[in-house]
Amino acid sequence: MHSFKELLEKFEQQFGKRQFPEKPANLYDPAQYILGIGGKRVRPVLCLLGNELFDELHPDAYNAANAIELFHNFTLIHDDIMDKAPLRRGMPTVHTKYNDAAAILAGDVMLIHCYEYLNKINSKTRQKLVNVFNKAAREVCEGQQLDMDLEQMLPEQVNYADYVNMIALKTSVLLAASLQLGAIIGGGSEGNQHHLYEFGKNVGIAFQIQDDYLDAFGDPEKFGKQQGGDILINKKTFLLLKALELCSPAQKAHLHQLMDTNPDNKVAEVLQVFHDCRVDEWAEKEKERFSQAAYEHLDAIAVLSARKEPLKDLAGFLLTRQH
Amino acid sequence: MHSFKELLEKFEQQFGKRQFPEKPANLYDPAQYILGIGGKRVRPVLCLLGNELFDELHPDAYNAANAIELFHNFTLIHDDIMDKAPLRRGMPTVHTKYNDAAAILAGDVMLIHCYEYLNKINSKTRQKLVNVFNKAAREVCEGQQLDMDLEQMLPEQVNYADYVNMIALKTSVLLAASLQLGAIIGGGSEGNQHHLYEFGKNVGIAFQIQDDYLDAFGDPEKFGKQQGGDILINKKTFLLLKALELCSPAQKAHLHQLMDTNPDNKVAEVLQVFHDCRVDEWAEKEKERFSQAAYEHLDAIAVLSARKEPLKDLAGFLLTRQH
Repeated sequence: MHSFKELLEKFEQQFGKRQFPEKPANLYDPAQYILGIGGKRVRPVLCLLGNELFDELHPDAYNAANAIELFHNFTLIHDDIMDKAPLRRGMPTVHTKYNDAAAILAGDVMLIHCYEYLNKINSKTRQKLVNVFNKAAREVCEGQQLDMDLEQMLPEQVNYADYVNMIALKTSVLLAASLQLGAIIGGGSEGNQHHLYEFGKNVGIAFQIQDDYLDAFGDPEKFGKQQGGDILINKKTFLLLKALELCSPAQKAHLHQLMDTNPDNKVAEVLQVFHDCRVDEWAEKEKERFSQAAYEHLDAIAVLSARKEPLKDLAGFLLTRQH
Repeated sequence: MHSFKELLEKFEQQFGKRQFPEKPANLYDPAQYILGIGGKRVRPVLCLLGNELFDELHPDAYNAANAIELFHNFTLIHDDIMDKAPLRRGMPTVHTKYNDAAAILAGDVMLIHCYEYLNKINSKTRQKLVNVFNKAAREVCEGQQLDMDLEQMLPEQVNYADYVNMIALKTSVLLAASLQLGAIIGGGSEGNQHHLYEFGKNVGIAFQIQDDYLDAFGDPEKFGKQQGGDILINKKTFLLLKALELCSPAQKAHLHQLMDTNPDNKVAEVLQVFHDCRVDEWAEKEKERFSQAAYEHLDAIAVLSARKEPLKDLAGFLLTRQH
């Protein structure tokens, strides 16, 4: 068994080589570019961790892990075009550095390359693995569309359950599937796969709530982002949606006025409303609720608890950061 | 064994049902839309024909055929965004009817759906089938990029061999792979698969040369398009590239002047140069060369010649049309 850090090194050692041919350069350079500007590689390492929860690392786990990381980067390239995002990981996005056409096509060939890795898997589990991968891939697309749909709605038109579902699809199912793919390769039973999947999904949602919380209430120096960045752009976050549900009509009117007029003291004023209607407390409890569900699923996996340590450590690291 | 028309009906019967869930509608409606605006379904029927060249139709052939048709439509959606094309099959393109973001995502989910069909294939040939599919898919992306690269170059900078390679990748390899996928499902040997693939590839190139020829010299009433449509937009075609190679310096200067100034009589003048430097004769010979190669590969396939009739009929139909 290995720690997250050790698995990350193992993953990078084989993934860090150039993934694409040299030519046509205008097709493959943009694809290689995004792989070269970093990323924490959480998803592929989750796949390796999922394998090691049940058995020794199998070479096929790297094929699955590579497919997952390529898929994740494919979604980033295409999402950035859709969202017209200029920066990714502090660097120009693919469509900004190259152009939209190159970015669309680089994403496409990256998605095809995922399936090249998956098809290298020789074990009998390949069909099952591809099914799990395809389901997650399709759900990530649905999540991105739902995100764009919700973007068009007024905050109070957004149903909280729909919002959680969108977050789960857009960000959590790939984390969950990464673990499950590893579990399948490691020989985990269907029941254990299910619990591991749910562990990943709940950690993902809890992490997103924490991310929204820290954007508003975190220490900006530690968090590394401008405090209230989400508030400034009226982003629909867990906090805003719940605040509109919890607050009084007067507070609601005040929030709307702040969102419509963007005054200089907008962040401080919105935070005051969040505080007054106790959405900060609610967020901590909500994060706790999803964390709790995650740990219960982890506990329910029928392997020696010592094997779960790396996953417990990772969840603890992800869900207790103050910045 | 069945004719092209019979297989087309069989294909449509199962493919014509809605391919995608109802929701999220903004994701799946654009994907369903392009499938509903027609298309000749040549590629999936080639797959069925490839199967029947060797054996009775196998249910897996429909899974492969569906994947191929979805892949083809995925490329159309994304290519139309890249090319900023307003119309497809006489109807608004997906990004025109919806928007770029919806079109990108609809294409993505359509590509994932291809792999859902491929993964339904239960036979032992699935890994080989996916390899053939992936290779063609990647080459189509390379072809699209090379096309965009050539678009940026002056016509005389374009090497003829590079142009043929681009056309082969962009349009012919998917036809060829469709046949090969069918052959694999039908149990054709590696050698027979190779000949069938090369048959499809060469038919594809010959068809493109004919298409370029008819755009210039065809009867516009029969062809159904404006005569010289390619000439009007200075499109790099087989004819233009070869004309620039064959013609005298004076003719070349004249062609350039016509392309730069777009006079009213541009089409007639360009056609005169084409005629003077005999590029029309060359095109007929060049088409014949690729057709010949196609038929030689078809002849080399080791099955009873009666089984080849539907393919011979199809090639004959595709390559002798005068409009």
